[in-house]
Amino acid sequence: MLTVGTVQFAPVRGDVEANIAAITQLLAGVRADLLVLPELANSGYLYATPEDLAPHSEPGDGSGPFLAALSRLAGQTGGMIVTGFAERAAHGLYNSAAAVSAAGAVQVYRKTHLFLDEKTLFLPGDTGFRSFEHAGARIGLMICFDWYFPESARTLALAGAQIIAHPSNLVLPHCQTAMVTRCLENRVFAITTNRYGTETLADGRSLTFTGASQVLSPRGERLAQAPVSGDAIALVAVDPALADDKHVTARNDLFADRRPALYA
Amino acid sequence: MLTVGTVQFAPVRGDVEANIAAITQLLAGVRADLLVLPELANSGYLYATPEDLAPHSEPGDGSGPFLAALSRLAGQTGGMIVTGFAERAAHGLYNSAAAVSAAGAVQVYRKTHLFLDEKTLFLPGDTGFRSFEHAGARIGLMICFDWYFPESARTLALAGAQIIAHPSNLVLPHCQTAMVTRCLENRVFAITTNRYGTETLADGRSLTFTGASQVLSPRGERLAQAPVSGDAIALVAVDPALADDKHVTARNDLFADRRPALYA
Repeated sequence: MLTVGTVQFAPVRGDVEANIAAITQLLAGVRADLLVLPELANSGYLYATPEDLAPHSEPGDGSGPFLAALSRLAGQTGGMIVTGFAERAAHGLYNSAAAVSAAGAVQVYRKTHLFLDEKTLFLPGDTGFRSFEHAGARIGLMICFDWYFPESARTLALAGAQIIAHPSNLVLPHCQTAMVTRCLENRVFAITTNRYGTETLADGRSLTFTGASQVLSPRGERLAQAPVSGDAIALVAVDPALADDKHVTARNDLFADRRPALYA
Repeated sequence: MLTVGTVQFAPVRGDVEANIAAITQLLAGVRADLLVLPELANSGYLYATPEDLAPHSEPGDGSGPFLAALSRLAGQTGGMIVTGFAERAAHGLYNSAAAVSAAGAVQVYRKTHLFLDEKTLFLPGDTGFRSFEHAGARIGLMICFDWYFPESARTLALAGAQIIAHPSNLVLPHCQTAMVTRCLENRVFAITTNRYGTETLADGRSLTFTGASQVLSPRGERLAQAPVSGDAIALVAVDPALADDKHVTARNDLFADRRPALYA
C-alpha cells in the first residue's frame, strides 16, 4: 500500500519564496509516498508576457530554488512530490510538471495541450506523456487541460501508469467529474490537485480556480476531495496493483478488448 | 434544426412481433428527423446460445420483418430511425445497429466491443464505426458498451459525426454520466437510448437495465432524459452545426489542439 495525497493551496503570483514557505508549512509533519501539488506552483498563473513570467521560472534540472526546496521537503515526507512549475529552458518557457525526490528531479513532463493564453507564455510541450517507477508503483504525469483529451490518460495508462498525478489550475467546471470517466475507462488512480482563489491582471483578465482537488480510484470512486476553497491536504492509502486489473466483467478486459485497427 | 429523439421501451425476449407492435404504438403520431431505439430491439437481450437467438435475428439488408416494419414507421415519422437489432449474417450473428429510412436500411454498424456473454452469441463487429448524412446532419453509430472505450466516439467525431446515435441495453451504472464526458471531449450531440426492465435466463443469469435514456448537447448539457423505468419518448430540436464548433475557448479548438504524434 502507498500513501498518496493531494496538496491544495493558492500559489502567490510572482513570489516563489512565498510559495515555498506555504508548501513547507502545509507539509510539516506529513509523511507520504506520493504528494501532488497544483500546476505552476512556483509562479502562479496569470502573466501578460513570457518576459513577465520568466523571472519566476527555473530549469527542470533541480538547480533552481523551487525544485531544490521540494527536494528537501521530499526528504522530510519520505516520498515523491509531483509539482507543476514554470520551467525555463534554452528556447523559452514550458508549463511543466516535475517529480521530485530527496535525490532531485527524477522526471519532467512538459504540458502537451496548452490552455487559452498559456499559448502566449509557453512553448508546446515536447516531451510526450511520461511515467516512472516509484515505491513499486508506476506514476504518470499530465497537467490540467490535458484532461480534456482522452488520449492523455489513455497514453499514460497504455504505458503502464497505475497512478496519474495531475497538477491543475482549473477554471472550467467539468474536470472533477470527467476524471471519473478517465479513471473508469483506463482503470487507473488519479490525483488531481487543483488550486483555489482568483488572479486578476492589470489588463482586466481574471480567473477563478475551482479547488475540489481529489483522489479517484480505478473504479471511479472518489476516495478524497478537498473543499472548493482553502488549503487542504488529503491522504489516502492505495494499492497501485488494483490498477493492473483492467477487467470490467469476467469476460471484459478493457485493454485486451481494444480494437485499434477499427479506430481511425 | 432537426427534431431528434430517444424512444425507450423494454423489448420482449423472443417475440419480434410484440416488439414491432410496441414500437408501432409508441411512435403513433410522432414526427421526427431522427429517432433512436434501444440495442437488440428486435430480439431482447439474454440468450444462452446463438442457436436460441438465431430465430429472432434477421439480415441487415432490410429483408426481414423487423427492419421492414421500421422502414414503414420511418415513412410515418418522416425521418430516420436508428435501432439496435440482432443481425443474421452468413457466418453468424452480429449485435448491430441499423439506420432505417422509408427507403430501407441505409447503414449497418456491427458492435465493435462486445460485453460479457455477448461474446458467446455474437461475432465481433467487422464494420468499424460508421456515420452517414441525413437531413443535413452527419450521424454516427455506436452501441452500448462501445461507450467505455474513448476511441469509439472519438473515431466517429473525427470522421465528422455531429450526432452520435447510441442504442443501448445498459447494466453498468456509469454510462449516462460518462456520455457527458464523451460529448464534451468531442463536442457532439449524443442520443443514448437504453431499455428498462429485467431479463432472467433459466440458468439463473439475470440482468436489470437502467433506463434513463438521454439526449446530450456538445456542451454536455442533458437536453432530455427518460425515467429509469417505463416507456418514454423525448424529442428535442437541435442544430447539428453546433457540433462543428470544436472551440472550448477562443484559442482552444479541441480537434486542432490534438497532438497525435505524442499519443502512444
